[in-house]
Amino acid sequence: MSGRFISLEGGEGVGKSTQARRLAEALIQRGVDVVLTREPGGSPGAEAVRALLLEGEGERWTPTTEALLFAAARADHVARTIRPALARGATVICDRFIDSSRAYQGAAGVDDAAIMALHAIGSGGLLPDRTLLLSLPPGEAAARAMARDGGNADRIGGRDAAYHAKVATLLASFARAERRRFRFVDAAGAEDVVTRRLLVAALDGTAG
Amino acid sequence: MSGRFISLEGGEGVGKSTQARRLAEALIQRGVDVVLTREPGGSPGAEAVRALLLEGEGERWTPTTEALLFAAARADHVARTIRPALARGATVICDRFIDSSRAYQGAAGVDDAAIMALHAIGSGGLLPDRTLLLSLPPGEAAARAMARDGGNADRIGGRDAAYHAKVATLLASFARAERRRFRFVDAAGAEDVVTRRLLVAALDGTAG
Ligand SMILES: Nc1ncnc2c1ncn2[C@@H]1O[C@H](COP(=O)(O)OP(=O)(O)OP(=O)(O)O)[C@@H](O)[C@H]1O
Ligand SMILES: Nc1ncnc2c1ncn2[C@@H]1O[C@H](COP(=O)(O)OP(=O)(O)OP(=O)(O)O)[C@@H](O)[C@H]1O
Ligand SMILES: [Mg+2]
Ligand SMILES: [Mg+2]
Repeated sequence: MSGRFISLEGGEGVGKSTQARRLAEALIQRGVDVVLTREPGGSPGAEAVRALLLEGEGERWTPTTEALLFAAARADHVARTIRPALARGATVICDRFIDSSRAYQGAAGVDDAAIMALHAIGSGGLLPDRTLLLSLPPGEAAARAMARDGGNADRIGGRDAAYHAKVATLLASFARAERRRFRFVDAAGAEDVVTRRLLVAALDGTAG
Repeated sequence: MSGRFISLEGGEGVGKSTQARRLAEALIQRGVDVVLTREPGGSPGAEAVRALLLEGEGERWTPTTEALLFAAARADHVARTIRPALARGATVICDRFIDSSRAYQGAAGVDDAAIMALHAIGSGGLLPDRTLLLSLPPGEAAARAMARDGGNADRIGGRDAAYHAKVATLLASFARAERRRFRFVDAAGAEDVVTRRLLVAALDGTAG
């Protein structure tokens, strides 16, 4: 028996963390066994690597080193948290996963083939059954993130607008290339409205 | 202009750190521009990753995650310390390098092809011009390490004798497979005698 693996993707401030929690609550209310987790992090080892990734100077790591650190954190997270949960039949909801590495390190110049090779070595190439791509006009996402952080973004969130535009373009291109796995979800509007859209997109193609 | 890149390899306590320092001093006395460095570590980022690797519980990381963390530390070390030094023409002496990953993670079950793929992605596959493999009968190396640590080995050094025997066997097999790059050096005897052997083996095949 293997549970369903759902990831949420999208740029900074689009509402991934808010909606991952809301989606988990909605499924739990329906009696589903849910594990809610996030990247980078989601296991004690991966959280230790997360601190190296998100703190310090902007140029602390080269894009390639950053890709290796994300792959290491993900390997730990997959081995210690995600695979055991799926093996017992739980539904795993993950706030960011491999497509964030492909988009953020890709936008910094790392080859997609290299990122996927790292994922194959580190995590056996595990892919979500469904990836929900939340989208908002760039101004709106930035306004939400600004209202939340007051301008105190982390080391990666704080990169410039051109970088974040490239991230968004890459995420959309991944979604177009893998239509069975991805669903585009409009993240505009009230939180509960967005949650309802996500619930439909998360389950479509399953019996539940 | 590119400097000469020399690595020292061998099991725990064989005398790598002692001899890397002595070799650097001998070359400096001959007027060579030397950069002495070590792995894991050798740059600020890599030293931060080193702490994650050498501290904590024995089972803290899976062998695969460990291989990714070593590759990340090495990528930083190569980009920030080794390549700039070689580019200015310096001789780099490195206490452990890629062959330690191949031997230690290999002995823990990771494929050599995977380790070399990580090295290709992270560090452009950079190999030393010369790798000095120090060897001692296993009992003697363990006695040296014990005299130094009083039994307080780190997370990897503290693994069992069967593991360390496998590491030694793998290192020897790498040396036999790449005879141009490797030299076997007998690490028994007084420190200055070993240093003289290393100096010859480090330079043989060069004009200097
Ligand atoms: N539907 C919504 N309407 C208005 N504000 C929202 C909505 N969803 C989330 N927010 C707010 O927007 C901000 C950003 O949301 P959240 O932290 O969930 O985004 P995120 O995608 O996880 O961002 P990051 O990529 O930085 O982790 C938060 O302050 C959150 O409360
Ligand atoms: N030729 C020698 N004769 C006797 N003792 C030695 C010799 N060379 C080194 N030692 C001692 O052996 C101990 C181990 O040496 P060293 O720390 O250099 O080994 P190492 O190979 O770097 O070990 P590790 O793999 O644990 O880093 C030290 O206490 C050192 O002083
Ligand atoms: Mg978030
Ligand atoms: Mg040493």
